[in-house]
Amino acid sequence: MYPEILAHIKRYVQLQPHEEQLVCDMLELKKYKKKEFLLEPGKICQGNYFIIKGCIRQYFVNKKLNEQIIAFGLENWWIADQDSLLNKQPATSYIQTVEACEVLLLTEKNRIALFEQVPVMESYFRIMMQKAFVSSQRRIGFLFNMNDEERYRNFSKLYPGFMQRVPQYMLASYLGFTPQFLSRLRAKKV
Amino acid sequence: MYPEILAHIKRYVQLQPHEEQLVCDMLELKKYKKKEFLLEPGKICQGNYFIIKGCIRQYFVNKKLNEQIIAFGLENWWIADQDSLLNKQPATSYIQTVEACEVLLLTEKNRIALFEQVPVMESYFRIMMQKAFVSSQRRIGFLFNMNDEERYRNFSKLYPGFMQRVPQYMLASYLGFTPQFLSRLRAKKV
Repeated sequence: MYPEILAHIKRYVQLQPHEEQLVCDMLELKKYKKKEFLLEPGKICQGNYFIIKGCIRQYFVNKKLNEQIIAFGLENWWIADQDSLLNKQPATSYIQTVEACEVLLLTEKNRIALFEQVPVMESYFRIMMQKAFVSSQRRIGFLFNMNDEERYRNFSKLYPGFMQRVPQYMLASYLGFTPQFLSRLRAKKV
Repeated sequence: MYPEILAHIKRYVQLQPHEEQLVCDMLELKKYKKKEFLLEPGKICQGNYFIIKGCIRQYFVNKKLNEQIIAFGLENWWIADQDSLLNKQPATSYIQTVEACEVLLLTEKNRIALFEQVPVMESYFRIMMQKAFVSSQRRIGFLFNMNDEERYRNFSKLYPGFMQRVPQYMLASYLGFTPQFLSRLRAKKV
């Protein structure tokens, strides 16, 4: 049994004891070292990953060969290339561990079987997708309405623990500015 | 019965004839004139709106009192303030018609009842949320990786019919640049 994910699911929907077992039976525990790849462009994303321990990033490599981070994942977050899953197409993003990680993989095949056996899991995933959509819409709002310094301050207020866990250049990539700008900001003792 | 929405739902999930009736029973047909508001900040979003006819925009007013458009909706698209719906909080966005519109409102109360009566509708909404999330992640990628002109060309290639239906200043707001820049681009016969 995986208590972390069961606790997370039960924040949103109710699970009967036998359903808890069914959920856990469908998950695969996987361990990765630091900087290992869970997904690379051209491959089909295997499923949704729930993070038990560690930190993961998702990024594109843009035309100028810069890494553009589009998502971070920490404990109790899901991460996947939803575009690849939804459209059954090769991924366009990398998913890579930032730290050594323990994750639970719910493959697409198992997800479909699980939704049949435990229909309330469909509600849980609908809510997860709705939350993900809301947060990416908020992020678009921040990109339009805040300057670089405001985005940095906002992010460090929202995720104080996180700031210590990722290298500066990754944080700069996520927030959309240069590592040099971030160093100057930090020197100001933001 | 509302054939447009039933056809849309059946692209993603299967509906039995009696379920089609249940879906339609839960929807309210609403007609709006041009520039009417479906939602304003401070009010709770009533539910999800499916557009049968017309064009709708969703926008924030930022600190500089500029309108920042975060979403457009056309025929066969859903529009709502998902943040307000998910968190049962007052909305922070405006939803307003750009043209005279006919929409189908699925109130939150009716959505919950409908998911109980027609569980496959939960799958349909999960897929809608997943699609919305994927497209907003793509949009974040465009904002980071394309300059203003590239974003304009990309948008006009993806939605050619749409360009004729909205005023230039709205398109500029959605794409994140000034109406003056858009006029110059169009003058170049993009």
